[in-house]
Amino acid sequence: MLGMICVRACSALVGFRAPTCVRSLHSFPGITVAQIDEEVAKLLELKAQLGDDGKTQFVLKTPKGTRDYNPKQMAIREKVFNTIIRCFKRHGAETIDTPVFELKETLTGKYGEDSKLIYDLKDQGGELLSLRYDLTVPFARYLAMNKITNIKRYHIAKVYRRDNPAMTRGRYREFYQCDFDIAGQYDAMIPDAECLKIVHEILNELDLGDFRIKVNDRRILDGMFAVCGVPDDKFRTICSTVDKLDKMSWEDVKKEMVNEKGLSEEAADQIGEYVSMQGGMDLAERLLQDHKMSQSKQACAGLSDIKLLFKYLQLFHVTDKVVFDLSLARGLDYYTGVIYEAVLTQAGTVSAANEAQNDTNADESVSVGSVAGGGRYDGLVGMFDPKGRRVPCVGVSIGIERIFSIMEQKAEASPQKVRTTEVQIMVASAQKNLLEERLQLISELWNAGIKAELMYKKNPKLLSQLQYCEEAGIPLVAILGEQELKDGVVKLRVVATREEVDISRADLISEIKRRTEA
Amino acid sequence: MLGMICVRACSALVGFRAPTCVRSLHSFPGITVAQIDEEVAKLLELKAQLGDDGKTQFVLKTPKGTRDYNPKQMAIREKVFNTIIRCFKRHGAETIDTPVFELKETLTGKYGEDSKLIYDLKDQGGELLSLRYDLTVPFARYLAMNKITNIKRYHIAKVYRRDNPAMTRGRYREFYQCDFDIAGQYDAMIPDAECLKIVHEILNELDLGDFRIKVNDRRILDGMFAVCGVPDDKFRTICSTVDKLDKMSWEDVKKEMVNEKGLSEEAADQIGEYVSMQGGMDLAERLLQDHKMSQSKQACAGLSDIKLLFKYLQLFHVTDKVVFDLSLARGLDYYTGVIYEAVLTQAGTVSAANEAQNDTNADESVSVGSVAGGGRYDGLVGMFDPKGRRVPCVGVSIGIERIFSIMEQKAEASPQKVRTTEVQIMVASAQKNLLEERLQLISELWNAGIKAELMYKKNPKLLSQLQYCEEAGIPLVAILGEQELKDGVVKLRVVATREEVDISRADLISEIKRRTEA
Repeated sequence: MLGMICVRACSALVGFRAPTCVRSLHSFPGITVAQIDEEVAKLLELKAQLGDDGKTQFVLKTPKGTRDYNPKQMAIREKVFNTIIRCFKRHGAETIDTPVFELKETLTGKYGEDSKLIYDLKDQGGELLSLRYDLTVPFARYLAMNKITNIKRYHIAKVYRRDNPAMTRGRYREFYQCDFDIAGQYDAMIPDAECLKIVHEILNELDLGDFRIKVNDRRILDGMFAVCGVPDDKFRTICSTVDKLDKMSWEDVKKEMVNEKGLSEEAADQIGEYVSMQGGMDLAERLLQDHKMSQSKQACAGLSDIKLLFKYLQLFHVTDKVVFDLSLARGLDYYTGVIYEAVLTQAGTVSAANEAQNDTNADESVSVGSVAGGGRYDGLVGMFDPKGRRVPCVGVSIGIERIFSIMEQKAEASPQKVRTTEVQIMVASAQKNLLEERLQLISELWNAGIKAELMYKKNPKLLSQLQYCEEAGIPLVAILGEQELKDGVVKLRVVATREEVDISRADLISEIKRRTEA
Repeated sequence: MLGMICVRACSALVGFRAPTCVRSLHSFPGITVAQIDEEVAKLLELKAQLGDDGKTQFVLKTPKGTRDYNPKQMAIREKVFNTIIRCFKRHGAETIDTPVFELKETLTGKYGEDSKLIYDLKDQGGELLSLRYDLTVPFARYLAMNKITNIKRYHIAKVYRRDNPAMTRGRYREFYQCDFDIAGQYDAMIPDAECLKIVHEILNELDLGDFRIKVNDRRILDGMFAVCGVPDDKFRTICSTVDKLDKMSWEDVKKEMVNEKGLSEEAADQIGEYVSMQGGMDLAERLLQDHKMSQSKQACAGLSDIKLLFKYLQLFHVTDKVVFDLSLARGLDYYTGVIYEAVLTQAGTVSAANEAQNDTNADESVSVGSVAGGGRYDGLVGMFDPKGRRVPCVGVSIGIERIFSIMEQKAEASPQKVRTTEVQIMVASAQKNLLEERLQLISELWNAGIKAELMYKKNPKLLSQLQYCEEAGIPLVAILGEQELKDGVVKLRVVATREEVDISRADLISEIKRRTEA
């Protein structure tokens, strides 16, 4: 058995299935030490899973980087989704859905360096397919395919990234994105401001502690690169390096720019000055006067829009949380204008305790505490349109996995138990041989819309029925006994207080509804 | 361009990528005429997609067998899901979620002949993965992995089947399943009866017309095969043939049994007699007395359980829709006891008109009109448990795609428009230069939980704002003008009646809530 698994690990390594295990190094031209280390680790992990006896037939697990959600996690997830969906609906969004996989070519050329993280499906004869990497590219494909020029939609669904960092760093390979986007040719910054208002509303309502929303503009970044002397063909790669400022010191970022990306020290230093700037509308005004920055038309357009954005955000009363931050870059290629990212500022304790499973983002830029991000992408739909017709878009993605983790932690810390069902009443019996009577009663309750359970036993003990209610948090019990059946009543028991009253069968449903109204 | 695509089609055909197009037949040993026809059809389809000029850069479509859901379809889908989830919750079910892909070996050996329809992921170095084929096997894996012996859960998610029949027959490759399952060692037929009660409730509530729920038992089928003289090793394959009785005549089924599967004519005729039987509890009683059937212990156990099931269903008042039907077989290998399937009996008109996109089932047995199915599978969890511990399970899967189609058709036929948002009010202006006032007002409304929209223009025309409301079905408009701002009021307009009243800003929110309460 170990041999077979070993062969698989080898074949995964070299890309084909061989009938033997590790052969000489000559069989693996181009293999690196790191690759060997990785494969050895995999084999050892497999060995550990096999246990001492080596008898286990197969590995009982979910694929690497994925997880199941148990009922308690689902109850929390439902609560978070409801808050987010309520907000999206409040802002008049429709919703759409797209397939979990797209034609491979639909995703090609949209994600820059991250394209290597795309999951491909096996070529089983037919189209070449890939799992979606985000919801934005499928959205753009949907708009172009259906020739839609105006829509405000949300889309909540799972996306897939074959990210290397293991579960220990908490980066999932399958995770949810909650996207809200506005497509259409509109007056500047009005939809953009609404996206930020939405982030503000959701983070407030979820009650995750204080937060900041950083904003910047790709045109300001590009203009800044231009006036600092970055060659045109290095804009994107230098932008990727700037994007690491939330995880790396400026010194390290500078080193990467100069040593790895070949930027001049002088240019790097000039960038360093700008990316340390943070402020509000005042900073945008100051930079519009800046002798260097003002030389770039692009930067000026971006700065004017930032000013306008802040004006609208003031009317929404949300500027207390918004910072214009020149170090914000964001990884994806497709942004063309305003970009933003929300970070939790009080999440230190939570994220420290929860580091192991916590810093996944439902979004491409990973920084500890980041819970939402987005921006304007006016060129993406045109990439799909045969005639290149542009549909300007702006949107935001809520990084739900991190929010789940925080909510889960909160639930753990709270004395209140998370209920995983909404059952209002248990139909129980005090004596033997009353299964038929229980079935008849519960059927009446279900038909009246009451959420009810019974134990699937002919003769359950009353005590075990009551204990089940306490464990599951069911508030009421309808107890049937011979006397009650004779009298045409049901004994209604309140689990919390142990109070019991006889209720006539005719009044039972209204009495249950009265007592369980939220 | 055509050449490249041609290469891809060829490589799909022969399983590797070759740098040339169609070569001599010697290069493709074992290729059949049908395969060649299929590939030619694929190439011609690609050619058609390229159009006359051959200039299109790529094909703008969703993968074969999949589709997007537009907002209108989503609104209908949400309604159907809500009805189903409400029912599952009424019966006290928790919910779980599992990854969209599983280790390939988790799915191996669970689906019999259908295994060829499983989507595999490309081996990109790492684990071998497959997209889930149903929700039952992942559920069993989840139970074994977490050592859960008791749970009542629902799971609504997409599953994937690389089914060959094209879109013209309406079989989707990505489709939803809505599963409800009860796992645990309980007294006979109580959970099984609840599953049927659930199907009854959901189909009633969705108001899809009349329906029948056929029930049978794998043990009765196996016992029947034994007493009719089917050799043990042919049970499963003969069972698959019986399963085709909803699509094929008895004559054709018999032919397949005798000619293809090598059954004796005599055995086939005996089976033919049994599988034409339909009835209720009485039929079960009659068969328990049947001189042949009563020789099989297995069949007797199944028949006794069918009797018990009908007794419980009588208490639930659902026997009017339930038929004990000996021709029901169901395709999957893992069933061990009771099996059932619900069919719409009045769906003739709908399904005839809708044939092209309609007969997909969220479940493996495809018969025109089938909308739910399930059964007992007591052995599946044990296949995953290292010690083979059994967890008896029974469950039902609602075939949601077909239900969507019917609901969509109904919506099309209805004069009432399907709303795709829940917006209560549009914030509009009657004059120019009131964008800031509109932004301020809508922000107040959002903060008060009102669902509100505005047009993303500085100076939209009043008429276009009102027209938008009519199209989108928004019931109210808050109109701001200079006079209204001076007076501290908002002009509230009812879109349907064109009635307008001035409302003070202080009363606006309560007035909107009052007027839009459902």
